[in-house]
Amino acid sequence: MKTRAAVAWEAGKPLTIETVEIGAPKAGEVLVEVMATGICHTDAYTLSGLDSEGKFPAILGHEGAGIVREVGAGVTTLKPGDHVIPLYTPECRNCKSCLSRRTNLCTAIRSTQGQGVMPDGTSRFSCEGGEVFHYMGCSTFANFTVLPEIALAKVREDAPFDKICYIGCGVTTGIGAVIYTAKVWPGANVVVFGLGGIGLNVIQGARMVGADRIIGVDINPAKQEMAKKFGMTDFINPSEIGNDKVVQAIVDLTGGGADFSFDATGNTNVMRQALECCHRGWGESIVIGVAEAGKEIATRPFQLVTGRVWKGTAFGGARGRTDVPKIVDWYMEGKINIDDLITHKLKLEEINHGFDLMHEGKSIRSVVVY
Amino acid sequence: MKTRAAVAWEAGKPLTIETVEIGAPKAGEVLVEVMATGICHTDAYTLSGLDSEGKFPAILGHEGAGIVREVGAGVTTLKPGDHVIPLYTPECRNCKSCLSRRTNLCTAIRSTQGQGVMPDGTSRFSCEGGEVFHYMGCSTFANFTVLPEIALAKVREDAPFDKICYIGCGVTTGIGAVIYTAKVWPGANVVVFGLGGIGLNVIQGARMVGADRIIGVDINPAKQEMAKKFGMTDFINPSEIGNDKVVQAIVDLTGGGADFSFDATGNTNVMRQALECCHRGWGESIVIGVAEAGKEIATRPFQLVTGRVWKGTAFGGARGRTDVPKIVDWYMEGKINIDDLITHKLKLEEINHGFDLMHEGKSIRSVVVY
Repeated sequence: MKTRAAVAWEAGKPLTIETVEIGAPKAGEVLVEVMATGICHTDAYTLSGLDSEGKFPAILGHEGAGIVREVGAGVTTLKPGDHVIPLYTPECRNCKSCLSRRTNLCTAIRSTQGQGVMPDGTSRFSCEGGEVFHYMGCSTFANFTVLPEIALAKVREDAPFDKICYIGCGVTTGIGAVIYTAKVWPGANVVVFGLGGIGLNVIQGARMVGADRIIGVDINPAKQEMAKKFGMTDFINPSEIGNDKVVQAIVDLTGGGADFSFDATGNTNVMRQALECCHRGWGESIVIGVAEAGKEIATRPFQLVTGRVWKGTAFGGARGRTDVPKIVDWYMEGKINIDDLITHKLKLEEINHGFDLMHEGKSIRSVVVY
Repeated sequence: MKTRAAVAWEAGKPLTIETVEIGAPKAGEVLVEVMATGICHTDAYTLSGLDSEGKFPAILGHEGAGIVREVGAGVTTLKPGDHVIPLYTPECRNCKSCLSRRTNLCTAIRSTQGQGVMPDGTSRFSCEGGEVFHYMGCSTFANFTVLPEIALAKVREDAPFDKICYIGCGVTTGIGAVIYTAKVWPGANVVVFGLGGIGLNVIQGARMVGADRIIGVDINPAKQEMAKKFGMTDFINPSEIGNDKVVQAIVDLTGGGADFSFDATGNTNVMRQALECCHRGWGESIVIGVAEAGKEIATRPFQLVTGRVWKGTAFGGARGRTDVPKIVDWYMEGKINIDDLITHKLKLEEINHGFDLMHEGKSIRSVVVY
């Protein structure tokens, strides 16, 4: 069959809307009609060409929601009509990682996913006679896409696609970092560096679990108002107080240092500040942001020897099929706010404008509705 | 009263045996007759002058065991005749750190201890009319010393001083890193970098809690035999296989990476290897070694984002008054081996020879018996 899709033909060029051939789902695969998709910094990173693993031509997009239209042989947990969120971090429940109970980083299809193909080594997409690669196993910038069964979370049917698509990446990454990776406790002092889409979700995750002080750090004072709405109690602007005074300001505000800090900037110098503002003895810093290729984090080992812990998180530590449906429930129950984070709705034809809005800092999240 | 002591008059000079004046214990303090003391790398580090916090003249030594001879006003938990191990990490049970239940790094007397004095701001030691500083709150290179009550662990009276003194630092640091900081689980794969006194205790700690593979890494092949005796299952010599192949060798041996790794070298390049040999998703690396002043650790943040955790430990995460008596019990019950680690017994007059043995790599632990 055919589907409309935004195709990334090569790095650094705008996407173009094409009619793409899509193959039927093979064994263990599922055909999904994508109803809505967010546009994320990770898509832009790959499109820029900086992502050494980026392959072209490809159909980008990894933050979607849709409806199952057809299942391949052997698929038992999904049927046509089911509402689903695609998972760039699948959950097979059978690999060493899933069975470890200690990580969400399922390895069942990691190698083929990284190569832009389905687990059998081939792509379901082609255009103008040539193969087009999948992206992060999702390719939600196509109206129809094919995914492995283990890379789809089944969610309730009354949840609006144009909101819950954001749970496919940003919401889960931020909230999950708080509850699954850091396990922030009630009454904890939390610091969040970078008040973009991820940082705001860290803030509302911290509020949800009963954190005490929730300190936001950003060089853009315009971020302050929205962050307060999501639960931020204190704001620090490094441009105002001086970048070298940020750590001490946090230590002073928290009476000794943060119980938990989160980097949502991707800047390795900020990651160091995030570690060093943690409380001696137990403070934990969680790296969420993706750094530029080749950049390194550094600190004196004394910071660790005196009890600080340096961690990271991917997809918020969430197990996609198990945890994503719960986060959808939390949204529907009003425990978390997604509506205010989705600042722009676009048609597929306007997708490049969505990238522009992101680069210009004018959107928190733009969502394409098919 | 007077006591014999080895005094460090200035950095870089050998210790000299002196008759030192020692004041009576003040309120909350205890006079202890030190029966035996180990000689540790930390003593040598301070004596070398590299320790920016080192103060002279001082009575070094922090790894002792002895008998309470007199208690000051208000001391309720100890009486003359009690057997004790001095604690450079005290346990007041009332400060923010102790009450957090999340760290062993009691802060009750931290500032005065760092200044080489008792909590009231004065020293109990003087020699030839001048003040002599305490060291790490212990000063076990004196036959008699004064400590705060909160810096003494009461231990069973049938335990030999010349063995359990080692529990005052090295044994607890190594075993504690495994059981209190890392919480190594039965069946885990463990890697230990540096097979000196600390590393051997990490190994026997890992064996005690039922670790599966216990891999030792050292550039000195002579360390292999002793490490095997303590529970090492595999040995890697970076000088033989090439330093750049160490991480891959560990990943291969463990089928994916270490569940836990420990740095007991103090070398920041080794600390990086220790992190990067950990298993994707959950591997934790614990820094034990003390690095040279100014040295930093570094890695790509991708290592953390994909699930590795970087931690550190001081005094093995052990709460001195609570945990040290248990470790003495474990020694007396034969669960851990200290005897084979104490390679040399010396008289106080031979203490400089003990430093020489350590620098020459000829001893694991030299103990001075008074």
